[in-house]
Amino acid sequence: MANFKGHALPGSFFLLFGIWWSVKYPLRYFSEKVNKKSHRNHCFQRLDVIEGVVKIIFALIGMLAEQFVPDGPHLYLYSGEERSWVKLMNWQHTTMYLFYGLSGVVDVLTYSPLKVPLGLDRLMLSVAVFVEGFLFYYHVLHRPMLDKHIHSLLLIAVFGGAFSILLEVFLRDNIVLELFRASLTILQGTWFWQIGFVLFPPRGGPAWNEDDHDNIMFVTMCFFWHYAAAILIMIANYALTYCCIQRCKRNNGEIDIGLEVRKQKSDKSSHVALLNGSDEE
Amino acid sequence: MANFKGHALPGSFFLLFGIWWSVKYPLRYFSEKVNKKSHRNHCFQRLDVIEGVVKIIFALIGMLAEQFVPDGPHLYLYSGEERSWVKLMNWQHTTMYLFYGLSGVVDVLTYSPLKVPLGLDRLMLSVAVFVEGFLFYYHVLHRPMLDKHIHSLLLIAVFGGAFSILLEVFLRDNIVLELFRASLTILQGTWFWQIGFVLFPPRGGPAWNEDDHDNIMFVTMCFFWHYAAAILIMIANYALTYCCIQRCKRNNGEIDIGLEVRKQKSDKSSHVALLNGSDEE
Amino acid sequence: MANFKGHALPGSFFLLFGIWWSVKYPLRYFSEKVNKKSHRNHCFQRLDVIEGVVKIIFALIGMLAEQFVPDGPHLYLYSGEERSWVKLMNWQHTTMYLFYGLSGVVDVLTYSPLKVPLGLDRLMLSVAVFVEGFLFYYHVLHRPMLDKHIHSLLLIAVFGGAFSILLEVFLRDNIVLELFRASLTILQGTWFWQIGFVLFPPRGGPAWNEDDHDNIMFVTMCFFWHYAAAILIMIANYALTYCCIQRCKRNNGEIDIGLEVRKQKSDKSSHVALLNGSDEE
Amino acid sequence: MANFKGHALPGSFFLLFGIWWSVKYPLRYFSEKVNKKSHRNHCFQRLDVIEGVVKIIFALIGMLAEQFVPDGPHLYLYSGEERSWVKLMNWQHTTMYLFYGLSGVVDVLTYSPLKVPLGLDRLMLSVAVFVEGFLFYYHVLHRPMLDKHIHSLLLIAVFGGAFSILLEVFLRDNIVLELFRASLTILQGTWFWQIGFVLFPPRGGPAWNEDDHDNIMFVTMCFFWHYAAAILIMIANYALTYCCIQRCKRNNGEIDIGLEVRKQKSDKSSHVALLNGSDEE
Repeated sequence: MANFKGHALPGSFFLLFGIWWSVKYPLRYFSEKVNKKSHRNHCFQRLDVIEGVVKIIFALIGMLAEQFVPDGPHLYLYSGEERSWVKLMNWQHTTMYLFYGLSGVVDVLTYSPLKVPLGLDRLMLSVAVFVEGFLFYYHVLHRPMLDKHIHSLLLIAVFGGAFSILLEVFLRDNIVLELFRASLTILQGTWFWQIGFVLFPPRGGPAWNEDDHDNIMFVTMCFFWHYAAAILIMIANYALTYCCIQRCKRNNGEIDIGLEVRKQKSDKSSHVALLNGSDEE
Repeated sequence: MANFKGHALPGSFFLLFGIWWSVKYPLRYFSEKVNKKSHRNHCFQRLDVIEGVVKIIFALIGMLAEQFVPDGPHLYLYSGEERSWVKLMNWQHTTMYLFYGLSGVVDVLTYSPLKVPLGLDRLMLSVAVFVEGFLFYYHVLHRPMLDKHIHSLLLIAVFGGAFSILLEVFLRDNIVLELFRASLTILQGTWFWQIGFVLFPPRGGPAWNEDDHDNIMFVTMCFFWHYAAAILIMIANYALTYCCIQRCKRNNGEIDIGLEVRKQKSDKSSHVALLNGSDEE
Repeated sequence: MANFKGHALPGSFFLLFGIWWSVKYPLRYFSEKVNKKSHRNHCFQRLDVIEGVVKIIFALIGMLAEQFVPDGPHLYLYSGEERSWVKLMNWQHTTMYLFYGLSGVVDVLTYSPLKVPLGLDRLMLSVAVFVEGFLFYYHVLHRPMLDKHIHSLLLIAVFGGAFSILLEVFLRDNIVLELFRASLTILQGTWFWQIGFVLFPPRGGPAWNEDDHDNIMFVTMCFFWHYAAAILIMIANYALTYCCIQRCKRNNGEIDIGLEVRKQKSDKSSHVALLNGSDEE
Repeated sequence: MANFKGHALPGSFFLLFGIWWSVKYPLRYFSEKVNKKSHRNHCFQRLDVIEGVVKIIFALIGMLAEQFVPDGPHLYLYSGEERSWVKLMNWQHTTMYLFYGLSGVVDVLTYSPLKVPLGLDRLMLSVAVFVEGFLFYYHVLHRPMLDKHIHSLLLIAVFGGAFSILLEVFLRDNIVLELFRASLTILQGTWFWQIGFVLFPPRGGPAWNEDDHDNIMFVTMCFFWHYAAAILIMIANYALTYCCIQRCKRNNGEIDIGLEVRKQKSDKSSHVALLNGSDEE
């Protein structure tokens, strides 16, 4: 759907996931510092399965929306009479959603009796993001300058995210990579909304001049402001989670344990989880 | 051979290898979970040697076919009378096959008394895929738009595969990378067939309009549908292998051993082989 | 500020940091070889916090200078009367400084009670450098040839640095990466000055012919001479630090300890800190 | 020197180093399998210093040749009268040699009392190769098609080598990477000779048509034939070294030791040095 709603829908999906991750990963990080790893692990595994199911649901909503909006293809791909393809734009969007759905399926399979090897879920998510990136890349080759530019900025977030998730295949449960993924997902979400506002100004606002070079420059800058905002959201959520955990600890009388936290080398190949001092309150 | 058969031949080679790998690697993965590593290792080493020999045979078939088809160069490279090169297209294809042959040779040498260092076989395979990629890249620079585009999509699979195999030099026997390699090889195989059908429609079907932008868009999307299909094939083969192994275990009374599987950190630098729970049936 | 001072200011900031790092990291490297790691660690942690604060101050100076120079935008972004953006160039530079400021904030947070995971400070620095790179990339697309070329050379240093810092997320405290970062930062510093001298010749010197191909060739070469000079500065500072440490050791009677230095495998995933022989004087 | 000798000189340098490495690294690999690591290590360290010195000498020869050939710049950079740069081509080549010289200097410093951290020598070599690559990249932008293409193929070997050496910073003494480096260096060497023969046909042979597309296609293919040849040279040298070592062992009565070789995990982060079976003769 090349209209405002067609950008707001995926934007909202990404935003929801990004903000959820910006809370979930600090939560797991802090709880691992306090408790033993195995204890809450089971709980977070269940969350991963639920995430997979939500991904599948979101992907189905997106696919159905792209196919069955009034001006959609209604599952027709080729029109025999006119000898031409039907609404390829909607079909391409459907394809993007399809891969996110597949990623959700692999997420669920990972914790099923099939025991898909760990890491395949991250690989499949990375593939889904790469597919989104490649489809957008070929998607916007023959568009007006501003349209092209605003989508090519999106590609920075998309390919950055895809490579970062690819690293997670090998450095699973690396808090730095997970927070980076969350921040890029929030960026994608807000930028989809921004694209909607720029290309399809709602409420009859003035259209943007698509060939004005100043608009291009502003949009470039605006993209990075979005990322700065995403980082501030991440820091705020991180701090909030920290405060919640601290309050919980005080109420649950877990303070004693908290003071004993030692250096945990959870991952030898990255120094990220290193905890250099004692846990002060 | 710039015709249908010239694309179907390598397509079949890739498809055979891809599907074989999509069975072999889950098989090894499950058998390692049950038995001790060293036990079946010898068996899989022998398979590697056989694979190398098959690679050499396939490469020879390809090279001979490219040279000795009726309109081939028959090993003539330069025609002195006309002062021009002879059938360079066929020679380029011959070169691609040559490197896959060399990769087969290194595979065989790895398990010969020469004891070529482990990892060189993967490096050589990666080089062969890179060479294919570079040759295709320069190959299609001056072609019609659809021809160029359909081959450039192939490059995504080729370079993706080459980088993935390069990683295997350092992360050998990583099941995630091996399954990824298998999926990209299946993709290459089916896509070669698709290229053949699009550029040389068999049985006198209608030719594709090579400059229609809608065709380009459809082909882009179609490429990723092929990959979605490759992923489904992978999942199906994985599940089939799982069922076979489960049935074998029940018959062989190896259930007791199966229940004792512990966390095996086979590779410290990747967390892939981590087995988080007990082996349920 | 598209003038000489607008290039000299960031050039000086980079130069200061680069030279400081070219002294700090050898110092830490030698002191770690002599003493136990934990001993001086605390001291270097405090330095990291101070560095963060200095980064914030430099970023604020840069942002204020870009906004409030006489021909700056004075915080106005959009002029309603003229229906046009105000001084976008200055706003873009402000954005670059903003991300370095954010990097400083994360540096400080890393050692605050919040306990931001280690590695995020490096990631944020890397993001700041990437943002600088992307902004410059889009910044110079429509400029004269020499201007474009001289900035695109800068991008080699910028993206090289960004990737190198990204590696430090996973290989923290790797002396080789840190020295590489220092050398590229010095290069950025001197090159900003060079850009200022070439594009805005001070004291009424002759302007450079922006379309002369020989000028382009010279500038390319000159860029690598700057890097050669940066390497020589690094070697000199390294040697000076070595001599100082040696003299300190002799005065403090730490010679005995120095002779006992053994192989320290501080980081298993890199062989950098390997000390192969005994410490000779 | 844009003539035949100007390409033959660096070609010979690269060829010498490539062939030397293709003997040295298998030699070290086999001797490590037989003896304890520390024993022959000292000997190979001395070789590294000698290599460094040879690099410096080669770089000096190259620089002097570029400056003082009859039509060279004789160290003049800017001609005040004509207000133009003097022989920038030769100056660019001088710059390339300069970085290889610096790499030699760091090689020597690594084993000097200064104790430059291990890994910096590889980094500096990688930087030298990158500088060569970037200079060539900008060097050939405005040349005839064949000239441009034949140099751009060289860039594959150059950047491939640069990245491979960069990996060696972190995976030092990895036999696979070292053999790969050797093969790419041989390729560079033979390709420089090929460039000389194509662009400056010696003995008054016929000039190549620089705009014939068939020539481009042949040259592309020829490049990969050179690499196939380089691989065959590598295999031959590897086999020869293996035979020599085997004969030495028999003569020196070291057979007993040879039979006891066990699995040596010399490098945990790569599985390369794994020796899976017993050493058969």
